[in-house]
Amino acid sequence: MPPLPASHPLDARASDPALLGWMVGSPPPPEKRIRFDDGTCRQFPQIRWAYSHQRQLVPTRAVPRGTGPVWELPRAPREDLDAVRFMPIGADAPMSWGEAFDANYTDGIVVLHRGRIVQERYAGVLRPEVQHLAMSVTKSFVGLLGAMLVADGTLDEQAPASNWVPELSGSAFGHATVRQLLDMTTALRYSEDYANPAAEIYDFVRAGHVVPRPADYTGPDGFHAFLRMVQAQGTHGEAFAYKTVNTDVLAWVMARATGQALDMLLAERLWQPLGTEHDAYFSVDALGTPFAGGGLNLALRDLARVGELMRLRGTRPDTGHSIVPGAVIDDIARGADPARFAKAGYGLLLGWSYRSMWWVTHNPHGAYTARGVHGQGIYVDPAAEMVVARFASHPMAANAHLDPTSLPAYHALARHLMAEPG
Amino acid sequence: MPPLPASHPLDARASDPALLGWMVGSPPPPEKRIRFDDGTCRQFPQIRWAYSHQRQLVPTRAVPRGTGPVWELPRAPREDLDAVRFMPIGADAPMSWGEAFDANYTDGIVVLHRGRIVQERYAGVLRPEVQHLAMSVTKSFVGLLGAMLVADGTLDEQAPASNWVPELSGSAFGHATVRQLLDMTTALRYSEDYANPAAEIYDFVRAGHVVPRPADYTGPDGFHAFLRMVQAQGTHGEAFAYKTVNTDVLAWVMARATGQALDMLLAERLWQPLGTEHDAYFSVDALGTPFAGGGLNLALRDLARVGELMRLRGTRPDTGHSIVPGAVIDDIARGADPARFAKAGYGLLLGWSYRSMWWVTHNPHGAYTARGVHGQGIYVDPAAEMVVARFASHPMAANAHLDPTSLPAYHALARHLMAEPG
Repeated sequence: MPPLPASHPLDARASDPALLGWMVGSPPPPEKRIRFDDGTCRQFPQIRWAYSHQRQLVPTRAVPRGTGPVWELPRAPREDLDAVRFMPIGADAPMSWGEAFDANYTDGIVVLHRGRIVQERYAGVLRPEVQHLAMSVTKSFVGLLGAMLVADGTLDEQAPASNWVPELSGSAFGHATVRQLLDMTTALRYSEDYANPAAEIYDFVRAGHVVPRPADYTGPDGFHAFLRMVQAQGTHGEAFAYKTVNTDVLAWVMARATGQALDMLLAERLWQPLGTEHDAYFSVDALGTPFAGGGLNLALRDLARVGELMRLRGTRPDTGHSIVPGAVIDDIARGADPARFAKAGYGLLLGWSYRSMWWVTHNPHGAYTARGVHGQGIYVDPAAEMVVARFASHPMAANAHLDPTSLPAYHALARHLMAEPG
Repeated sequence: MPPLPASHPLDARASDPALLGWMVGSPPPPEKRIRFDDGTCRQFPQIRWAYSHQRQLVPTRAVPRGTGPVWELPRAPREDLDAVRFMPIGADAPMSWGEAFDANYTDGIVVLHRGRIVQERYAGVLRPEVQHLAMSVTKSFVGLLGAMLVADGTLDEQAPASNWVPELSGSAFGHATVRQLLDMTTALRYSEDYANPAAEIYDFVRAGHVVPRPADYTGPDGFHAFLRMVQAQGTHGEAFAYKTVNTDVLAWVMARATGQALDMLLAERLWQPLGTEHDAYFSVDALGTPFAGGGLNLALRDLARVGELMRLRGTRPDTGHSIVPGAVIDDIARGADPARFAKAGYGLLLGWSYRSMWWVTHNPHGAYTARGVHGQGIYVDPAAEMVVARFASHPMAANAHLDPTSLPAYHALARHLMAEPG
């Protein structure tokens, strides 16, 4: 587990962004300002506000929901869930589901059981109609779309990325296949270690303007320009290695293969047929390229809808329309090779795998998840007929800090719902 | 009329942004790129694309329409309108309504007659669901909201701006009243002459990040910081002088008086009760302040709905709900003192006045309009029961270039609809 910061951060209640009054006033007083250009929008506790206000900080492109009817999620609220107890990993005392909400700095959570909302709760500045930054949950959406394009023959999963993007021929991606991108088994000279300021992930996000650039910046301009420069280190296909650039290369391949930018592909293939409630949006680089690796913002119930669509093997229940082929979702749920995954050394994710940009637990319930730093996630538990969708703004980025109070909580809730289906 | 550029620009067909393929490709080729930071997004012909894609160029805040039912505009298309002929000002040959579409570099136009859409047409990259930059039409929305706040007693139109914003005490606005702001009769040491690069309008938009800043920028940061520095020159109340800063000061006063940012005030007072079809959005400065003087983006039919609401004296016809007090609109339609307006020297707008940030023609039909550079506009003709809503991207900013082929066209169409009401 990455180290906790030396000074213990404010807890969830003390860091409540509504309580702290960020960006209130015309103009907000200097000590309450959150900006893109000075980096405050990426600091804790400011992220508790900023993750719900990305579009006023950076340029964005909409993922329009269109004008079709909403897939209404029926409600059957349950008061018994908060008392469900579980033992956090490494702890010596149990915690309740209700307590885990604040322990994980949760901004909002929706629990679906058999398609009904049994719990829905918001904190701070998040509201049902507000889009929250999904971080790397974005990757799971891109991976799902990529797997759909493989299934319909638009992409050949054994063909290299350079088949669609010749500019990648000289890079590590020249001979990386679509399947290797989807499962992140490329071997790259590129570090995603957020604790290391020299890690290439920072060069990538500077290229894409995800973070401010120094005044004398002369690096690559835009996501694409950076991706062309990534070199191989080792042999593709041997080990899982979680690196954001795989997703952006996949999105580049998808854009070339379909002629559609990622935002419109997501809109047409998923957002509109799914009956989402709200438009989503992507942050973009200075050339308008959506940040496929981590730039999606969406409303919480729409996050839950995607999870429920996965659980239902791609068929929307209120209309009966198949939106994602069942075989695509079955393939994700089955996961990839845990032996390849193990090489990445995630101590808390023993026996897991990564398939089409979804994290697969291989637990007895067949659960799989979409995960983003600071606590973003979808957790699908097919055996328990349960889906959890969560947005959070935890002071620590790595999910290793949230997993101890999240993964056992999800599993305990699943078992509770199976034992007492209501 | 300001001079035409030395090199005659591309005409509407030749500058069609879909034809030119701006920003197509992943990434778009260098010669097809439109960016914020290099200023290309404000150059012709790039503006023909950029005015329909502001949110991917700059940070924005949404004006949500909410979830209420849309005010559906009935359709009664008429084929006879395009043949309506008029004499452009200063021309020696007539032009038809159909020809005026391209002559004005129109991106989209909606004509309502007696509340029905008799014509709706789009060009280039504008579509019914796309939000287009409204430029100074934004001011008319802010002025309408300001007049509503005067009517309901939230604002005293005779009180100075510093009554709500003490920080303005040392500026020209320390003793400018709300009414002087609404009617732009303040006397300011501030030039809005776009042809002069040293004009203060450029300092203002740099402060608000509407345009890129030089690397060594040390000027005021944010709209509010600039507004505090504007000094008086002359005596308030004596003459109309069109200066954008009046609107941003009014918006500042409104934000303080209501505790609501402009985007939410517009949403609650107008966008949601009106039954708009689409969210609108404001561009914002680095502190999240909406650009009240020219930063609103909205869909064309929603622009028409605002015009029709004005024509109907503030009552939405499908629900019968009063959204704007009739007296507020009557006051705008009556206009202000044309003698004060004449001092501004608009050669094509003889006898006009400016009231609550609407331009009033004082013509026999009682027409009044909202106007923005490059051809944005709403034209309300009460006598003809006609509303025209238009978005455009004319190569020249000043409406003096569009008025010769617009104002006589509107009036001719109005007379045609009165003579042949269909």
